[in-house]
Amino acid sequence: MPDSQTNSPAPTRAPRLLLDLGAEAAGPRHARLARALREAIRRGRLAAGTVLPPSRVLAAELGCSRWVVTEAYAQLAAEGYLEATVGSGTRVRPLAEAAAPPGPGAAAPAPPAPLDMAPGLPDLRAFPLRGWLAALRSAGAELPSADLGYPDPAGHPVLRQVLADYLGRVRGAQAGPADVTVTTGATDAIGRLCRELRRRGGRAVAVEDPGWHRIRQVVTAAGLAVVPVPVDDQGLRADRLDARADRRAGDRADAVIISPAHQFPAGTVLSAPRRAALLAWARITGGLIIEDDYDAEFRYDRRPVGALQGAGPPFVALVGSVSKTLSPALGIGWMVTPPGWTPAPDRPDRPDRPEVPAGPPVLDQLAFASFVRSGGYDRHLRACRKSYRDRRDALAAALAARLPEARVAGAAAGLHLLVRLPAGTDAAAVAAAARAAGVRVASLDTYRIEPGPPGLVLGYGNLAGHQVEAAVTRLATAVRSAS
Amino acid sequence: MPDSQTNSPAPTRAPRLLLDLGAEAAGPRHARLARALREAIRRGRLAAGTVLPPSRVLAAELGCSRWVVTEAYAQLAAEGYLEATVGSGTRVRPLAEAAAPPGPGAAAPAPPAPLDMAPGLPDLRAFPLRGWLAALRSAGAELPSADLGYPDPAGHPVLRQVLADYLGRVRGAQAGPADVTVTTGATDAIGRLCRELRRRGGRAVAVEDPGWHRIRQVVTAAGLAVVPVPVDDQGLRADRLDARADRRAGDRADAVIISPAHQFPAGTVLSAPRRAALLAWARITGGLIIEDDYDAEFRYDRRPVGALQGAGPPFVALVGSVSKTLSPALGIGWMVTPPGWTPAPDRPDRPDRPEVPAGPPVLDQLAFASFVRSGGYDRHLRACRKSYRDRRDALAAALAARLPEARVAGAAAGLHLLVRLPAGTDAAAVAAAARAAGVRVASLDTYRIEPGPPGLVLGYGNLAGHQVEAAVTRLATAVRSAS
Repeated sequence: MPDSQTNSPAPTRAPRLLLDLGAEAAGPRHARLARALREAIRRGRLAAGTVLPPSRVLAAELGCSRWVVTEAYAQLAAEGYLEATVGSGTRVRPLAEAAAPPGPGAAAPAPPAPLDMAPGLPDLRAFPLRGWLAALRSAGAELPSADLGYPDPAGHPVLRQVLADYLGRVRGAQAGPADVTVTTGATDAIGRLCRELRRRGGRAVAVEDPGWHRIRQVVTAAGLAVVPVPVDDQGLRADRLDARADRRAGDRADAVIISPAHQFPAGTVLSAPRRAALLAWARITGGLIIEDDYDAEFRYDRRPVGALQGAGPPFVALVGSVSKTLSPALGIGWMVTPPGWTPAPDRPDRPDRPEVPAGPPVLDQLAFASFVRSGGYDRHLRACRKSYRDRRDALAAALAARLPEARVAGAAAGLHLLVRLPAGTDAAAVAAAARAAGVRVASLDTYRIEPGPPGLVLGYGNLAGHQVEAAVTRLATAVRSAS
Repeated sequence: MPDSQTNSPAPTRAPRLLLDLGAEAAGPRHARLARALREAIRRGRLAAGTVLPPSRVLAAELGCSRWVVTEAYAQLAAEGYLEATVGSGTRVRPLAEAAAPPGPGAAAPAPPAPLDMAPGLPDLRAFPLRGWLAALRSAGAELPSADLGYPDPAGHPVLRQVLADYLGRVRGAQAGPADVTVTTGATDAIGRLCRELRRRGGRAVAVEDPGWHRIRQVVTAAGLAVVPVPVDDQGLRADRLDARADRRAGDRADAVIISPAHQFPAGTVLSAPRRAALLAWARITGGLIIEDDYDAEFRYDRRPVGALQGAGPPFVALVGSVSKTLSPALGIGWMVTPPGWTPAPDRPDRPDRPEVPAGPPVLDQLAFASFVRSGGYDRHLRACRKSYRDRRDALAAALAARLPEARVAGAAAGLHLLVRLPAGTDAAAVAAAARAAGVRVASLDTYRIEPGPPGLVLGYGNLAGHQVEAAVTRLATAVRSAS
């Protein structure tokens, strides 16, 4: 297709950069052009050796003065991204030669192969690929062509029934299929609930502090304020929630997001009095309890604590996913919601209805339903539970041996544990030293809103058993070097 | 798990309903309780015969006065949803006995089996299930376990490369893999672009009028205003866009969403002068052109028109999906974006980064990549093109024979055509009569913002060849009966 407007030499892709100029609001045009070019070079969109258009041509292209372009070029030449070559114009320099941005670790030697103790991942090597492919095949073989149309945003009825049964059996949830919505994950579920809260006039959501940091992003992205509520050894301080019936007058929490079965990151179980207090808060104020049931399948000493939803279905939205049991790459989650919170079925003939996000692909939904119904999911969970328990034991033993000054907490369940460091330790410095030593760990502060005593959160889901010793050795070295 | 707060009889699920009371803002409490109960009965959550809790018990449950409950019960008894039974309390009546809500068609006789001519669906019976399952198997067999972690929100690199190649070859797009983002569909892509526009301070987006109505919802959901721009026989009236360079001063369009290859629903191709004018608008104002390339694969008379993106990569975001070529149930789409618009890779260690939605499941992404690379996708498109062309010819012939007063337009491509009705025809009445006669068609007004002459949009993607005659016969009857 001819493009009558383009006068610049065809091979260069620099003109593509200018969109940023119009769309980003901040700064003068030459600075914005420099930023766009810099980003394109860093990301490899403008390869080393690429000749940029002459300033006159690019200025015409951009509809700006030639000065804007020469300023931007000069800035990037000063930074080492561009070089002027006699007789062949302005070129992109090889990236290694460009000035490295100043920052911690910029000049550090190459670290050893990293061991992953960042919390959040299950054992990806243990994914039951064969069973999953069989489930896909079996779901595909039975697929009616009508199921290939626009999917029900609440999820396929077959999976909703399977999840209602599964959550009733394993988590003590009280739910019929009409109460279940299939989502692309826990984040998607919490996001949908927050947006619905916002639509209903909600203003603020209480979250655990410390708590999973992504939740705060989801709340904020929905236009709601985050209200931090502290956590102690019984779990969320439910007494800190305002329980007056007229609380709508202010901007106190319209919902609270909690992880009662295994608080992230402290690992505590919400105590029975706190559960009762939380349900009473919801009953009196009309607030919604969003139960993030992210790793309840893995409990090592006794039967998992039942879901709070089972004790108060009208007050609790139960949120879960396969991200910690199978893989986050599957993109399958769910929520069990009180009446009035399930998205209405999509109606292409009713364009006035609000736009509802689609759930996972239909075939994946049916494959997961088939995997659960065949018993494959239960078998996988049993195998994982044993292997994670062994790994947790090895990790706790290694920590006791090599880091005796640290107190381990929250290890009775899940895929992570909390290491409390001696008072005065700089946990961020420890995490940075650990990273330099080749082990990824998270400082407890990552998950905090209000400051508190130092700690580290160690995930062992995706750490191979044979890596535990090496990881703790590196970590102990990092703790010593940082204190 | 014991629930010390619950005093109501265990078997009833009515207490679940009360959450709505707190969360929805409108109306007095008894009306809200009545609404929640009514909805629960309509949706089958409260089955016929269910005994509701005594008003005293439910009032205690809800923390409200008993009067609130008796008022709500009385209202629903008056509407026929509940009945008081001597000696056994208040029960849910069988739904068929409840008063039918007044409305058109409520008393109509059972219509014939519906034929689907609503636009938007491909032939679901033609889905290449065997090829798709083979692609899933082949993608699964090669899957490294590292790919089972949290997916890159921009999409798997393998599919991004495959899409860059495919779109270059088939649509004349200019894109490298770094410019491609994998999404869950076109709606997801447009939604991401609109939210990003909003974040950058954008306020309004221009859309085609008439145009695909879902797009307006997506724009509005992102907090942006919709600016309708009329469409004529050359496509979008690009001259109606404000092209002054200082347009940021007002709230004129920061982007325009168009379907240049086959305008929905008019079916026109954006003319060359209009393309040039649109690119000039983007160049001068810094506005973004969002090209909705929703059905360009199906063009019957000549080669498909190349994507506008190929003529102006820095100005155009090209959006597409497999919803019209394979199935909307797959949940796979993409966008090719100018530099600065591709979402940055997710960094779990950088919780300060804005939350980015996940794309499709990784295995599905790799299956689609494998399907394209194996040539299976091209073969499927070729087969569909022939079968859709035959169906279009049959439909056009049937319309000419049975509805000679209607003018057919936009039939050179895609999966729908536009039927213009004689002036003065009530298209909504025709659509309603057609629905009663057992054929789903859409009035052109469904897709309009400003009023205009009457028309119908007829989709033939998911209409079997042998149904064409019957559908047009029913439609002709509906047109006669409505005029």
